[in-house]
Amino acid sequence: MRAAFQGELGAFSQQAILQLLGPKARPIAQPWFDEVFGALAKGAVDAAVIPIENTLHGPIYESYDLLMKHDFVITAEANVRIVHNLIAPPGLTFSKVTRVYSHPVALNQCLDFFRHNRNFQREAFYDTAGSVKMVMEQRPPGAAAIAGALAAEIYGARILKRAIEDDRQNFTRFFLLEPAGSKPRTAAGSGKKPWKTSLVFSTRNIPGALFRALSAIALRDLNIAKIESRPLRGKPWEYLFYLDLIGRSSDPAVKHALGHLGELADFLRVLGSYRSA
Amino acid sequence: MRAAFQGELGAFSQQAILQLLGPKARPIAQPWFDEVFGALAKGAVDAAVIPIENTLHGPIYESYDLLMKHDFVITAEANVRIVHNLIAPPGLTFSKVTRVYSHPVALNQCLDFFRHNRNFQREAFYDTAGSVKMVMEQRPPGAAAIAGALAAEIYGARILKRAIEDDRQNFTRFFLLEPAGSKPRTAAGSGKKPWKTSLVFSTRNIPGALFRALSAIALRDLNIAKIESRPLRGKPWEYLFYLDLIGRSSDPAVKHALGHLGELADFLRVLGSYRSA
Repeated sequence: MRAAFQGELGAFSQQAILQLLGPKARPIAQPWFDEVFGALAKGAVDAAVIPIENTLHGPIYESYDLLMKHDFVITAEANVRIVHNLIAPPGLTFSKVTRVYSHPVALNQCLDFFRHNRNFQREAFYDTAGSVKMVMEQRPPGAAAIAGALAAEIYGARILKRAIEDDRQNFTRFFLLEPAGSKPRTAAGSGKKPWKTSLVFSTRNIPGALFRALSAIALRDLNIAKIESRPLRGKPWEYLFYLDLIGRSSDPAVKHALGHLGELADFLRVLGSYRSA
Repeated sequence: MRAAFQGELGAFSQQAILQLLGPKARPIAQPWFDEVFGALAKGAVDAAVIPIENTLHGPIYESYDLLMKHDFVITAEANVRIVHNLIAPPGLTFSKVTRVYSHPVALNQCLDFFRHNRNFQREAFYDTAGSVKMVMEQRPPGAAAIAGALAAEIYGARILKRAIEDDRQNFTRFFLLEPAGSKPRTAAGSGKKPWKTSLVFSTRNIPGALFRALSAIALRDLNIAKIESRPLRGKPWEYLFYLDLIGRSSDPAVKHALGHLGELADFLRVLGSYRSA
């Protein structure tokens, strides 16, 4: 099974593929999110694994927007604990580090570390694992990187300091996407976890529209796990809402809620029902 | 008046400062968002201008999170139309461009342009205006940048092609922040625009909690312009809600709504009432 992901080899998404599909799945690295979705659309891969939100950073907006542009189905989710490490080429010791490259989000998640090491210059780079690849290939003087342990292993770099993130409560939630019509997958250990249903809707831009839409769910005592608003293209200051509720789309209460929401919303699409991670 | 903003000189935030405070305000460039807020906290500047959302990209999460960490007040808002231009050092012609540097968000907003110019390599850079500065200073062979027209002017570069963004409905909304207790400002031309109130709240993680919180607003026929959820630090998969409603915090209906929301919410803070842009 081939699974596309965004980033360089060694990215946290590769860790998610391991959790979702096991060690036999083949991770296919793609530089941009649109290419991850494109690879699945043209059948170059069997699945795509995309990050959807991080407990510190928040939503990954490209993933939300691309979900709408394609008609894939979410067949599983995974939560990956994000551990950032200071990684350097062999030979570069901690005291000789002067610059630290990583994705701005990763740099921002290690602010305490930088406060305690004021001589380290933060350098924004486009990718965490890619920053390890770069410092290994180009060896800029005094340059280290921040990334997951898998990246150090893949590129033959050394971990100088483990777990330098400010907050241990740092998790990224990933979706497994497969072609429309695919059945939910049961990842190892998620057999008895409650079902979740993800959907996307828009409302007319009138007072109380969102409140009324949520009533379709709340008045059936269904729990909303998450709501995310995204700008509606071509309609400045109007929004789409992505919503996760606890329950399966075939449950009677969920079925009724979706029917009712369909009446109230301008647009409604169910993105999938899957076991929660 | 000194106003801090994130980015290099020539950034769209500098354009926002111009719209909000006029040509006499002095823009103070800061490389990171936390430093923009820090400069205002220690009184090194009189105000800060921060982007809060873009009609294509969505919210600027650092701005939301830093609003919570500080107790500044929003005194005005501005919408800036985002026009991306292909910008190069003098002497580099369009046909000789091979690589185009910019912030990933800007690159992603010019995908049609890249589809029509398949020989151009997209290169992620940390900042739009900064990418103009870099191609001017370092002159990598065949390297152009994507940024606003102000950046070309400031760094003495040439605009090779104007308005290459996919979507003209590309606006960024900015907040003017001032120390707690500051009065709302009336920017030129916004004298008769309706008031907006921005607030942030959290609810207990129980079924229907968000629905009940929104009832405080909806049942008083107040219009919600925008709702944004942000992860709650230290409580994975729980969220804070940032909400903009139409009305001023001193209006009787808004006062009652805020009182009612205060009863229902675990936490509530009003970030400011200001004239809408």
